Amino acid sequence: MPFSHPFDQFTDSEMRLTSKLLKDHYSSNLHFVQIDLVEPPKSDVLKYLKAKAANESILPSVPRVSFAYFYKDGLLYKALINLVEAHIITSVALPEGVVGPALPEDMMEIEEICLAHETVKKEVEKLQLPPGYEIRADPWIYGTDDPNEKRPLVQCYMYLKSQPHPESNHYSLPLFFSPVFELLTQKFVRMDYLPSGYDNKSLKTHPWKPVESCEYYPGLKKEKVERPLAPLIITQPEGPGFKIEGSKIYWQDWEFHVTPNVREGFAIHDVKFKNRSLFYRISLSEMVVPYSKIGDGPCHRKQAFDLGDCGFGTNANHLHLGCDCLGVIKYFDCIRTNKEGEPILLPNTVCLHEQDAGLLYKHVNYRTNAPVAARRREFVVQSIATVANYEYIVNYIFDQAGSINVQVRATGILSTTPIEENITVPYGTIVAPNCLAPFHQHLLSFRFDPRLDGDKNTVVYDDVVPLDPNDEVNNKYKVAFVTKTNYVEKAGHIDTNPYASRSVKIINENVINPITKKPVGYKIDMPAKQMILADKESYNVKRAKFATKQFWVTKYRDGELYAAGEFTNQSQTDTGIAKWANGKDDVRNEDCVIWCTLALTHIPRPEDFPVMPVDMLQFTILPVGFFERNPALDVPQSNNSFNKSVLVEDTGSNLKSCCKTSL
Amino acid sequence: MPFSHPFDQFTDSEMRLTSKLLKDHYSSNLHFVQIDLVEPPKSDVLKYLKAKAANESILPSVPRVSFAYFYKDGLLYKALINLVEAHIITSVALPEGVVGPALPEDMMEIEEICLAHETVKKEVEKLQLPPGYEIRADPWIYGTDDPNEKRPLVQCYMYLKSQPHPESNHYSLPLFFSPVFELLTQKFVRMDYLPSGYDNKSLKTHPWKPVESCEYYPGLKKEKVERPLAPLIITQPEGPGFKIEGSKIYWQDWEFHVTPNVREGFAIHDVKFKNRSLFYRISLSEMVVPYSKIGDGPCHRKQAFDLGDCGFGTNANHLHLGCDCLGVIKYFDCIRTNKEGEPILLPNTVCLHEQDAGLLYKHVNYRTNAPVAARRREFVVQSIATVANYEYIVNYIFDQAGSINVQVRATGILSTTPIEENITVPYGTIVAPNCLAPFHQHLLSFRFDPRLDGDKNTVVYDDVVPLDPNDEVNNKYKVAFVTKTNYVEKAGHIDTNPYASRSVKIINENVINPITKKPVGYKIDMPAKQMILADKESYNVKRAKFATKQFWVTKYRDGELYAAGEFTNQSQTDTGIAKWANGKDDVRNEDCVIWCTLALTHIPRPEDFPVMPVDMLQFTILPVGFFERNPALDVPQSNNSFNKSVLVEDTGSNLKSCCKTSL
Repeated sequence: MPFSHPFDQFTDSEMRLTSKLLKDHYSSNLHFVQIDLVEPPKSDVLKYLKAKAANESILPSVPRVSFAYFYKDGLLYKALINLVEAHIITSVALPEGVVGPALPEDMMEIEEICLAHETVKKEVEKLQLPPGYEIRADPWIYGTDDPNEKRPLVQCYMYLKSQPHPESNHYSLPLFFSPVFELLTQKFVRMDYLPSGYDNKSLKTHPWKPVESCEYYPGLKKEKVERPLAPLIITQPEGPGFKIEGSKIYWQDWEFHVTPNVREGFAIHDVKFKNRSLFYRISLSEMVVPYSKIGDGPCHRKQAFDLGDCGFGTNANHLHLGCDCLGVIKYFDCIRTNKEGEPILLPNTVCLHEQDAGLLYKHVNYRTNAPVAARRREFVVQSIATVANYEYIVNYIFDQAGSINVQVRATGILSTTPIEENITVPYGTIVAPNCLAPFHQHLLSFRFDPRLDGDKNTVVYDDVVPLDPNDEVNNKYKVAFVTKTNYVEKAGHIDTNPYASRSVKIINENVINPITKKPVGYKIDMPAKQMILADKESYNVKRAKFATKQFWVTKYRDGELYAAGEFTNQSQTDTGIAKWANGKDDVRNEDCVIWCTLALTHIPRPEDFPVMPVDMLQFTILPVGFFERNPALDVPQSNNSFNKSVLVEDTGSNLKSCCKTSL
Repeated sequence: MPFSHPFDQFTDSEMRLTSKLLKDHYSSNLHFVQIDLVEPPKSDVLKYLKAKAANESILPSVPRVSFAYFYKDGLLYKALINLVEAHIITSVALPEGVVGPALPEDMMEIEEICLAHETVKKEVEKLQLPPGYEIRADPWIYGTDDPNEKRPLVQCYMYLKSQPHPESNHYSLPLFFSPVFELLTQKFVRMDYLPSGYDNKSLKTHPWKPVESCEYYPGLKKEKVERPLAPLIITQPEGPGFKIEGSKIYWQDWEFHVTPNVREGFAIHDVKFKNRSLFYRISLSEMVVPYSKIGDGPCHRKQAFDLGDCGFGTNANHLHLGCDCLGVIKYFDCIRTNKEGEPILLPNTVCLHEQDAGLLYKHVNYRTNAPVAARRREFVVQSIATVANYEYIVNYIFDQAGSINVQVRATGILSTTPIEENITVPYGTIVAPNCLAPFHQHLLSFRFDPRLDGDKNTVVYDDVVPLDPNDEVNNKYKVAFVTKTNYVEKAGHIDTNPYASRSVKIINENVINPITKKPVGYKIDMPAKQMILADKESYNVKRAKFATKQFWVTKYRDGELYAAGEFTNQSQTDTGIAKWANGKDDVRNEDCVIWCTLALTHIPRPEDFPVMPVDMLQFTILPVGFFERNPALDVPQSNNSFNKSVLVEDTGSNLKSCCKTSL
């Protein structure tokens, strides 16, 4: 592959070029926090894709530009670099108060600084800890509660580790004090105190009353005997059913590119099924996790933007064979910068594999007992991000009939706060002795840039409504119901309505399905969910307007990729959808974008602790009158010469008598 | 196993005894339609289970009683038989107008009678069919539109089969006439006509204008070339991880009985996890499928009760290795009666197997990069019923952390009606030339008889609500939200409310979780859905009140098993939940039952034709403060020496440069 593709991911040499140009330019130490590729201009890429599809020998050039966020003299800068011509396009200081995404090392250094700080040490002394205990500090993205605060800050949540083992679960033993530091200068700012329970009184730090910690790590946990598990082996004797060329994937009539990046984890580009264009780009664009809190204390500021503040690629897991996915696996890597602008390889951050998922379709002709049955094979693109205590497993699951299931599994460890003995509170669940898991929400914005059979698409929603039961002519038996279509004309939102079976669709009004006689389309099958609970005047909402509605429609513009805006860390306002869903832009039969908010109001269970069984959030995007008939009719019929299943060795029929032989 | 268990299923000899006693008693030909075991009295079974758990050598006897529905002299009879003492307990004629469930042979005979009938033949002649075409009749459950109709009737929907092959898809070529017959006498009653489109005018039968049929069967379908599919083999080299003793299943800390029956397919009894009682009985209790219809024509009567009218065991598929499920499989059989009261073996109607389902939980300590990860193994109890054109795949999926996912996959073939060329209608989708799939609903009632840590349980629902944003003391930052619990005191219903994250729970108020300090419970995580769209004055609703709400709570009484009542075929009213959810019975801290309506408003897609990719409906019932911590901590950690996954043979990194080696 001598030619690069516009969707090829950022390389280490491109990162080195970026940081070198900037270091040379400024002749000083820069503190880099993020360097990655700029999404190329869509119009240029479309020209490129068209020429490539036409097998033209000279392909149009697409600008290849990187961006760098770095601190210099206490201010955040953003630079753009032309990677082909190796020059700085622009590099400017952003206004005071704009904070960049957190670099993992910067956060981890704060823990060291915190634990070594005299004020913290004095607070720890008051605990009068028994021997063997250690203190842990989880540095947190600071959130926002003060319009005048301009410094990049870090709030530390403090815990005890009771076992002399690095994997002892400190989240089980939270403490009542919370020091705040400046991120860049690492200066101590203030000691905050958490309240003891429902009331507003925060407690003076007092001697620690030992309670047992709830452990999860093998060897530490109470469960010393593991339950038996029979091996279940998935093999693909003829290799995988997918083919990969660079960033491009071919599987079961699907074609698309997967491009890892530090902010979103990865993006999926130029999605086609059966040679028809579906989406220009799909990605998780943002996630926000606001916490409930009654009374005083610092926890109202726990509102992380896990993509904008932290990065799902930056914090992606190194995935392992036989652990994160089974079968025949292909991995993609990611790279991120360190402080110095040098590339750090993040290996195996995206895994690609096939899985069986039960039946895809079946019918038995009752006259002949002849069955047709095809099993549902799926292709999974998976990434897992660890954001401090929590894990998010993001799966895009492609099926054989043209649908994409977007599935997020929340797991990991609950963020906990201390609670005094014999108190219960209405905003959290006690999950271990003196350990509260406050109620919180996960609100994820998935961005779909559709391209259904062409660049101009329309978003509509159909409601299913009963016909007038008093219409004696058309509805004599009072059973009739019909669909009513509503067109989204201007950039804005759509409310869900499960009681009308409201279905949100992307259609192409310029292409009529010859069977249905209606425009071709795809439906977004999204469960109705509670949106952000914080008040509209709260910072939680001001900073994350996307979290107030399940669907947003905007007009496509280059650079409008992230639901809460480009800079979310300590942001005062949402500079994303809040601006773009402006009620003015025409979006009908235009190049439009649809944003889907997937939400979980998480009322923790003790069963979620000390490590949480996956809570699955999902929605599906599927063809509705896009094809003329079931597009999976060419999937081979299932049979056992192919699938090689076996019968449990017979331990006798469940029917005890001679029934089997005598009938 | 010399001793029978009260949950052991009905046997062929018990069926023979039942029919013999009745035939002897009446000394005449009886027309049997259903014979099966009566659910034993719960109080007797509980005594038995208690004695068995205590390893008592003499176990209390539990009555073993069968029932038979049969026609005699045009009336439906119900008899009860004491199977131990071999005598008839009771046998009575039911009031005129009570219709029994349909026996498959009875329905299939009507097709023969229909096609041979002179009036039908005359109608067919008017079609002036080209050579090679054949007529098919799908006999349908008649529904209800006349309070004075007492005869058991069958309505036939008529189709053309265009290919000289038994699997040619007649549903693609529906016809405009619909003859009605008496079920028992097989007499012709009347010819109905379907409307041509939106208006009320039904057409005189006219010469057939040939259109292409849309075929699904290999060899007949247009898709002559199948897409390649790489083998994906699931093996369990050490055998299955479950153990079966009679009807009892042991898997991963779960214990329960699976008992096939003709009406529900199967029931699950005495469900325990980690030695704690969860449910006395779980089953699908009823399903109703009402169709939309504007104007005249007979289709308003398409309202099948697929359990009460037909039977999910009676119509269960013979499941096959490597087709309906993969891995190491155990099957259970079912038996049903024929007209003569002789047992017919229905082999392999329930399959039991394990599957991998991705990650169960994961956490990576970012300080050490040490992961804990367990994969989610599931145990599936599956049955598939073919009800004429449609298939329903019913899965109960048990996980390792105490949850049960109830999943229904709708597949098979849409029920179609004819539509004139160049017409579209607002109550259906054109899915093939001149072939309309009317909008319809599937409403399934799952019955849970809970026994969480004891016989007396309570149903509650918790709402998540914001705290007053103007409460400056408790909610200064306007981010607080809390849960509010509501108790169901009297038999009745619960509305869903996704915007309050309303969660319906079963709790035991007598058992307090020592960690949460609240009653132990299980939550039913059910998506909010549109309920039945027909008007409350329609027969559709009068006959299926269960379909109007997503949750119902009733007091336990023996015999109250089926949501729409015992006799649903041509019923005039709902004799089930409509009676039992009476607003009077105390259900708080009582032996109560919860009924969950799972619903799909199905707006057909052309992609659903000629055979439908599965549409998945599901809900999950999971522990909420039932355990003190994650009950799956004893699941072994995942690793590749156990799972034996492999890397795709390396075709080069996605990172094109020297990144991997030089960092």
